[in-house]
Amino acid sequence: MRHHSKGHLNVEDRDSVLIVRLDGGPHGVFGLEIANQLEALVDRVDRDPSVHAVVFTGAHPERFVSHADVRWLQEGGAAVPPVGRRGASVVARTARNVDRARVLAPLVNRTPLGPAVELERLHATFLRMNRSGVIFIAALNGSALGLGAEFAWANDLRVMADGNFFIGQPEVLLGIMPGGGGSQRLTRLIGTHKSLVAILEGKPFTPAQALADGAVDAVVPPDEVVTRAVELAAHFGSRTKGSVAAIKRAVYFGGSMSLTDGLHVERTEFLGTALSKDGQQLMLDYMESTESSGELPLYNPDIYKRALELGTVPGRRSTNGR
Amino acid sequence: MRHHSKGHLNVEDRDSVLIVRLDGGPHGVFGLEIANQLEALVDRVDRDPSVHAVVFTGAHPERFVSHADVRWLQEGGAAVPPVGRRGASVVARTARNVDRARVLAPLVNRTPLGPAVELERLHATFLRMNRSGVIFIAALNGSALGLGAEFAWANDLRVMADGNFFIGQPEVLLGIMPGGGGSQRLTRLIGTHKSLVAILEGKPFTPAQALADGAVDAVVPPDEVVTRAVELAAHFGSRTKGSVAAIKRAVYFGGSMSLTDGLHVERTEFLGTALSKDGQQLMLDYMESTESSGELPLYNPDIYKRALELGTVPGRRSTNGR
Amino acid sequence: MRHHSKGHLNVEDRDSVLIVRLDGGPHGVFGLEIANQLEALVDRVDRDPSVHAVVFTGAHPERFVSHADVRWLQEGGAAVPPVGRRGASVVARTARNVDRARVLAPLVNRTPLGPAVELERLHATFLRMNRSGVIFIAALNGSALGLGAEFAWANDLRVMADGNFFIGQPEVLLGIMPGGGGSQRLTRLIGTHKSLVAILEGKPFTPAQALADGAVDAVVPPDEVVTRAVELAAHFGSRTKGSVAAIKRAVYFGGSMSLTDGLHVERTEFLGTALSKDGQQLMLDYMESTESSGELPLYNPDIYKRALELGTVPGRRSTNGR
Repeated sequence: MRHHSKGHLNVEDRDSVLIVRLDGGPHGVFGLEIANQLEALVDRVDRDPSVHAVVFTGAHPERFVSHADVRWLQEGGAAVPPVGRRGASVVARTARNVDRARVLAPLVNRTPLGPAVELERLHATFLRMNRSGVIFIAALNGSALGLGAEFAWANDLRVMADGNFFIGQPEVLLGIMPGGGGSQRLTRLIGTHKSLVAILEGKPFTPAQALADGAVDAVVPPDEVVTRAVELAAHFGSRTKGSVAAIKRAVYFGGSMSLTDGLHVERTEFLGTALSKDGQQLMLDYMESTESSGELPLYNPDIYKRALELGTVPGRRSTNGR
Repeated sequence: MRHHSKGHLNVEDRDSVLIVRLDGGPHGVFGLEIANQLEALVDRVDRDPSVHAVVFTGAHPERFVSHADVRWLQEGGAAVPPVGRRGASVVARTARNVDRARVLAPLVNRTPLGPAVELERLHATFLRMNRSGVIFIAALNGSALGLGAEFAWANDLRVMADGNFFIGQPEVLLGIMPGGGGSQRLTRLIGTHKSLVAILEGKPFTPAQALADGAVDAVVPPDEVVTRAVELAAHFGSRTKGSVAAIKRAVYFGGSMSLTDGLHVERTEFLGTALSKDGQQLMLDYMESTESSGELPLYNPDIYKRALELGTVPGRRSTNGR
Repeated sequence: MRHHSKGHLNVEDRDSVLIVRLDGGPHGVFGLEIANQLEALVDRVDRDPSVHAVVFTGAHPERFVSHADVRWLQEGGAAVPPVGRRGASVVARTARNVDRARVLAPLVNRTPLGPAVELERLHATFLRMNRSGVIFIAALNGSALGLGAEFAWANDLRVMADGNFFIGQPEVLLGIMPGGGGSQRLTRLIGTHKSLVAILEGKPFTPAQALADGAVDAVVPPDEVVTRAVELAAHFGSRTKGSVAAIKRAVYFGGSMSLTDGLHVERTEFLGTALSKDGQQLMLDYMESTESSGELPLYNPDIYKRALELGTVPGRRSTNGR
């Protein structure tokens, strides 16, 4: 019988922004229970038009998420003899198919495939965050290693506490490698070479290094981390949710494809927004303002400034909407 | 009946460099007429062996291109009921097929597909710029938003006027997203994360920020923008057109594919240049110079310096050619 | 009959690190003979569990590798009439198939396909370096142009001598383009735009510029280049070879694919390491240490520091192993 670490998410509702505290127990680890609750939360906020942003922070006083529950990683492997790369590929592929056919999930949870399917579902949750119109922000109140760092990279923005904290991927020092997306998202965040060196060495970034390399967006005193993250959540969350979703999909997914494939993703997402009710209304407003004022609104500095604050160009019809 | 913004390109011929001024009317917008004339221009210079570089600048005193003609974007959507992502994908795919079978174009211009096909054609023009042996340079005499910025990103180099100007993607503030390649080319120009944040926020870059992030290559006083761009055009345009085309294809297209696919693109383009008349002649010259001087020409600092100025390593045969 | 430049690799064995000096004759060029010996060396170290790192340096007093043997590049093309892009694509594709069916190689070495097959094999060698659990380090004792630079980009780390040296891709000045992976690996190393500009211009980087752009990892006095490279080789080579291979594959190959495809590569490589004997042992040790000490070992600064030095988290069982 498999050991399941306890752990849970504490959700605080602040209008269109949720603050979610990850409680991974005394060690602050990320285990199956947190993965399951995160999946349910992302599903809910993605569907709920009233939620525009989510701020994640750690319940532990000095850590965001320590790292994965190591037992969770280890147990799957212990049940089966060592497999080579070919075997691992088969397991990964089977897990993907099993995850797609969720009806089978209960059957495989007791088999060696169990952890691979759980990994597949965690990846699906992180990918859903990347596809969503919700802005996700990691408020790193302290350190984050391994899966803790990988969860941070899966957010859209990262605010980190200044101090004796660190963030990174130490897996190589345990004879393994990042498995929660770290080798892919850190690579796309800070570039291939810096990512390769960091992951091969296993040495984490200080807050200052993370900021300089673009691995985090802001470093602030520890007691301002959540406040600053909530400000960013309100600011970015004020944009039209349909636009946010389209932009995230085009940049995260299209941006990682070949240029021609990426451009096709952009055209698809663009047409979706251009044909949307929100988009149509804002564009009609924009044309009316241009005709009545004789100038393009975005070339009026006051209007552009207010638009950045409001999240949309102010206009006759659209101002009521939000 | 659809409204077509006026607008035209003024072309000035300076030997192997063309200077093209975009005149988008009093508001300096980029509409269908400019798109059509740009398509014809790119087609012409790509085929003409005597044209090595094109400098684009704005006819408006303070703007490169203000942004797209918003009516052009809006009208397509107004004719059809809002569609979801699935619908947008079908429209985008159909538009791609229609564009490939140009014979059908007149039939669809009056249907809701019209704007999608026009978008597809504009993307094809920008892609042709990326595949061409011609060096394209945006001489940003002032600001550029939306499609103006996207057109700048589709160029090979960007020189921007210093002053109270800006360049960026404000589409999110109109409930839409970049549709002229901005989510893809800005992402590949400055990196995934900086691009994501800029497009999600809708806030443009100042000239200094654009320079620091690599979004533009040089910032100079406004009255030096075109001069500087023409200098760069002459410098980069002095390279063999076949090499320029091969390099651009390998970096823009191969560089955005998986490493193994990209390497195959490189080998293909490399063999094309190595087997070319220009390549063969220059390599034979290089070997002769090596034998006669006893040293590799590129390890002679004076020869390397002159080669960078001339565009090719100077040699017995190749010097006549250019 | 084709001219084959002489050249050979001098191998010095220092426990788990090899130092390999490339001797490309008086001009220090990289020709077919060096390519063949490199292929054999990479094959050997990749299979040999006792070799953890290889340091490459140049036998020439002031150069790492001058550039390719130009005759090698030129001769293939001289035998056949100029071909267009379509022809080059066919040659490249045929070469790939021929290389896969090595049995045919002797038959084509005398045909125009010969050089294309040799190029294909050189690419295969560089790709094998990228897939390997061995750490490869270029100790750039001096300058490197063209294929010399491309060979350096194919290594995992680069240490360069300070002084009047340079590294870069001058091919455009010979009417050709990089053919040994430069347009792909430099692009992924320093970003699309900086790579495009450098390759289009043909101007090499000084050591300081290369360092600032991330094209090299360290610049040190000439007489410290090999020493520093060997230190890095020992440091990175102390990590588990299976982890190193998995991380390199995930970052180099997965990291250049679409995000979703890259994540699948990561999961496959991760499962391979998590199910490995090394990984299982180190994770079990980690859990035991956690239970006995009451704290996660990586949150004990002394243990983390020692782990970075040793290459693995110290533990009861794993300490004997290395």
